[in-house]
Amino acid sequence: MQAKDITSWADCAPTLIAVAAGRTPAQTVVRGGRVVNVHTREILEWDIAIAQGRFAYVGPDASHCIGPDTHVIDAAGQYVIPGLCDAHMHIESGMLTPAEFAAAVIPHGTTSMFTDPHEIANVLGLSGVRLMHDEALLQPISIFTQMPSCAPSAPGLETTGHEITPDDVAEAMAWPGIIGLGEMMNFPGVVNGDPKMLAEMAATARAGKTIGGHYASPDLGPAFHAYAAGGPADDHEGTCEDDAVARVRQGMRSMMRLGSAWYDVESQITAITERGLDPRNFILCTDDCHSGTLVNDGHMDRVVRHAIACGCDPLIALQMATINTATHFGLERELGSIAPGRRADLILTSSLEELPIETVIALGEVVAEGGQLRATCPHIDWPTAARNTVHLGKPLTAPDFEITGSGETATCRVIGVVENQAPTEALIRELPVRDGLIEGTGDTCQIALVERHKGTGGVSNAFVAGFGYSGPMAMASTVAHDSHHMIVVGTSRADMALAANRLAQVGGGVTVWQDGRELALVELPIAGLMSDSPAHEVAAKADAMVAAMQACGCTLNNAYMQHSLLALVVIPALRISDLGLVDVTKFELTELTL
Amino acid sequence: MQAKDITSWADCAPTLIAVAAGRTPAQTVVRGGRVVNVHTREILEWDIAIAQGRFAYVGPDASHCIGPDTHVIDAAGQYVIPGLCDAHMHIESGMLTPAEFAAAVIPHGTTSMFTDPHEIANVLGLSGVRLMHDEALLQPISIFTQMPSCAPSAPGLETTGHEITPDDVAEAMAWPGIIGLGEMMNFPGVVNGDPKMLAEMAATARAGKTIGGHYASPDLGPAFHAYAAGGPADDHEGTCEDDAVARVRQGMRSMMRLGSAWYDVESQITAITERGLDPRNFILCTDDCHSGTLVNDGHMDRVVRHAIACGCDPLIALQMATINTATHFGLERELGSIAPGRRADLILTSSLEELPIETVIALGEVVAEGGQLRATCPHIDWPTAARNTVHLGKPLTAPDFEITGSGETATCRVIGVVENQAPTEALIRELPVRDGLIEGTGDTCQIALVERHKGTGGVSNAFVAGFGYSGPMAMASTVAHDSHHMIVVGTSRADMALAANRLAQVGGGVTVWQDGRELALVELPIAGLMSDSPAHEVAAKADAMVAAMQACGCTLNNAYMQHSLLALVVIPALRISDLGLVDVTKFELTELTL
Repeated sequence: MQAKDITSWADCAPTLIAVAAGRTPAQTVVRGGRVVNVHTREILEWDIAIAQGRFAYVGPDASHCIGPDTHVIDAAGQYVIPGLCDAHMHIESGMLTPAEFAAAVIPHGTTSMFTDPHEIANVLGLSGVRLMHDEALLQPISIFTQMPSCAPSAPGLETTGHEITPDDVAEAMAWPGIIGLGEMMNFPGVVNGDPKMLAEMAATARAGKTIGGHYASPDLGPAFHAYAAGGPADDHEGTCEDDAVARVRQGMRSMMRLGSAWYDVESQITAITERGLDPRNFILCTDDCHSGTLVNDGHMDRVVRHAIACGCDPLIALQMATINTATHFGLERELGSIAPGRRADLILTSSLEELPIETVIALGEVVAEGGQLRATCPHIDWPTAARNTVHLGKPLTAPDFEITGSGETATCRVIGVVENQAPTEALIRELPVRDGLIEGTGDTCQIALVERHKGTGGVSNAFVAGFGYSGPMAMASTVAHDSHHMIVVGTSRADMALAANRLAQVGGGVTVWQDGRELALVELPIAGLMSDSPAHEVAAKADAMVAAMQACGCTLNNAYMQHSLLALVVIPALRISDLGLVDVTKFELTELTL
Repeated sequence: MQAKDITSWADCAPTLIAVAAGRTPAQTVVRGGRVVNVHTREILEWDIAIAQGRFAYVGPDASHCIGPDTHVIDAAGQYVIPGLCDAHMHIESGMLTPAEFAAAVIPHGTTSMFTDPHEIANVLGLSGVRLMHDEALLQPISIFTQMPSCAPSAPGLETTGHEITPDDVAEAMAWPGIIGLGEMMNFPGVVNGDPKMLAEMAATARAGKTIGGHYASPDLGPAFHAYAAGGPADDHEGTCEDDAVARVRQGMRSMMRLGSAWYDVESQITAITERGLDPRNFILCTDDCHSGTLVNDGHMDRVVRHAIACGCDPLIALQMATINTATHFGLERELGSIAPGRRADLILTSSLEELPIETVIALGEVVAEGGQLRATCPHIDWPTAARNTVHLGKPLTAPDFEITGSGETATCRVIGVVENQAPTEALIRELPVRDGLIEGTGDTCQIALVERHKGTGGVSNAFVAGFGYSGPMAMASTVAHDSHHMIVVGTSRADMALAANRLAQVGGGVTVWQDGRELALVELPIAGLMSDSPAHEVAAKADAMVAAMQACGCTLNNAYMQHSLLALVVIPALRISDLGLVDVTKFELTELTL
């Protein structure tokens, strides 16, 4: 399967000139719309002529561009806005392949995405990144790939399926769809001058591409300045106005995100709406969106609507989802505006505030109408190696989850889940010992990190509190940020073994078991992270999975996300990895019992 | 001689990080200034630390960056602004080499220039461009070269010393100092799809560089749109608000110029100050500055002052001379702002409105203080071929300038000079014939285009009106846009021969003769266009030349410029070239007599 052929502006120029001059008819003309010009920040009653997938003429009257075969679209009464850009996001978060993610977001007006396949990089390394990159290039919209920078995220504290090296980064920079380096999460490494992190950024800079940032700390002192001096060009980890302002003052771009579980636009956009700073360096993105959000609420259209609802001028909000993003990635003459030569990506909408996405054109073709996809989103033939990534080494049994102890009780470190927060608590709990095994009790149940990349048979066992599970149950997931082994949480060791084995059987996903019976299953056969089924099917299964968690007694908001983040050994305080319990306040392994 | 070594941000990153983190002392710290942040459009009471020629720390307190050997500059009470950028200009217009031009403008705060050596390209071709490029790279500021696109400007109507081909453009794109393609002046060629012009633009686009524009027509209809569709990314030929707005609406950047004879800022900046358009796509430049302007009035500081005097917010005016320019050329992470990693180019000034240029730092070094240059501006060793470009083939004598006629009078086409306007008039005059020769009379005198590139001995003779010369005199110049042969204007054929021979003797320049005696001489030995003497010496000689023209009876404003433009066969109505009289309304050669 060939990547979609996008002819360069230079190669299209003879045709574009001829269309604009009236010598050659356009392929498509959009007449009588109210065109949002993101260069001047104006609305103009203009026509648009398209040829070879690019804008040829954008001006007051395109009559001279119309021939007998020109497709004329009457946009009278509608606004014409540039197609929306998601400046930073992880496709895997939708549990969908690039093709199915594209199919889900195109009807919402997304025509460009800047994707960081960080999750698959942890499972399959550079070859996994290449697969995502290749499927991305087949889509009828523009999907660029940011080369993941940090696998593992926490060297020495976890073992990934594969690692990313500076040589990998240098190699990827020559691929056609690579736009830059994915978020440089190892900010302590940058601040401390870690040669590996600097080498990855240098390889990116030498290729003339954009270095993505990720500075997840409230410290805006010298460490923050040192990070900025290292080269990251953007950051989406800000959570308050001061964060956003600090980044832009350092010559970085502030990416403000509204994901399924990130709500960082409202708290930061006041930098523009109240402080009145120049908005050109502020950008909107999603970072992570679940399939349910895409199906029910939208994608970048949701983010733009939200920014407007937060008091942002609609034209500025649109700039933050179009030209600002394009400029950031060195693509301002390629996309992000309705102007000659650019990729012909546009949306027809009858309201700039409500932003109903009525018609979507990408690369000059109508790709969605009235919320319905009108284009094909081709799949690659995912190889066996990508579909066969859950290697347990052996079938697991209840004893694999036993935690031995002596005496009547044991004093244990317990991971404390906090509702609606990514950080966990490091609890100390006195747990009962029965028949030489430490047991969960009350709100405390077991958690296991099951090695699944190399089939070592390794199982790290510990305890977690806060889910509210009761009765015999277990839940397992191969989505286990960032190294994506398998996280199993349960009150019953027998159910934990059943759940783990079930995921090995189906090649990964999420499963919930109650008293020996499977309540729900989301199959994620590709890398144990993604489904190649349509978004609405995956969303329905994910809904059923959440219902099953509730049936087991869990009432937490976003409980699945909490589950999948319990191995994320870069966010405090206590986490689990294949190497054991990790004290993330000290970045070191720690013992289960005191 | 080696080009100045500018270490890349990536290679400096370990040091910049260490300085920002406080582990390594800075080379220079500027304390307590009021720093203009062109990213946010704010003024911040901040410190700055510099290392390896780049900004390492820009924040509230750089105490931790100061070591025993750190040079600490106390900027208390001063504003700290980014070094100024001239976004488009021709060094040759100053009659100075790149080194002497740099020496003249550094004390005015210019730290980056985007130069198009179009004039020398007409004389020496690609090798002349390379010489300019090489001397530019030696300077203590950042001088980028735009590869000239149009030599000849008017194929078929003139013969240049050398021509520029698409292959030349492709070759130059790999040179280290080339930033893009110089102004694409052949706008009819673009609109008509001329393959040569499209090939030059395509070579530039494939190299990922910026295509400069030049659309010198008031027609904003389909032809203008077709030009935009061809790919030029900017234009500096706009003269009114509608011109500026039209360009930005097409996704081009509007470069507004204040040169020695261009006054296009005041008439266009209302797009921002009155219409309130997003200012990010508006840029300031000079295009052409005479040495006298540089010595007496300034350079980009003069333009910024003027923009502010026109009612522009000072911070927006500064953005238009710094970050907007950097962004346009893909250099926003390299220069144009005071932010980590960028080239350490800054100005200390005590007033944002008056803009006195008190201290200038470029690439981390103090290069000017109190208007005095504090840096060395190295010259290349200009080769003999560049210093020996006036080839007449033979000494000229009065008969070479004779125009034969018969009868009592002859009806002649006469070039009419119009004060303060670039276009000429195509006059019809009845001139006396004496002894078989047509003679000038009254305000009409002779003009000759003397071939000087190939030594053909060719002299094209015609008549010109409007200078006001009286008494026997002649003036000759090897600055003769764009093909830069030699223009000789005079009332006396003997003086015309003396003036032409004089320029052959000194290797080019401008000379004024009266009744057999030389009144003034500006030697321009390099390509017949530039002097390698300091700007103040050249300016003094140019002043004397203007005085000599006045002594010969000429009272026109900018009379020297009028003289040097009389062979510019792309601007209406009547011009002279080595091929004869040119009717520029029809783009064809025409006869002297009717």
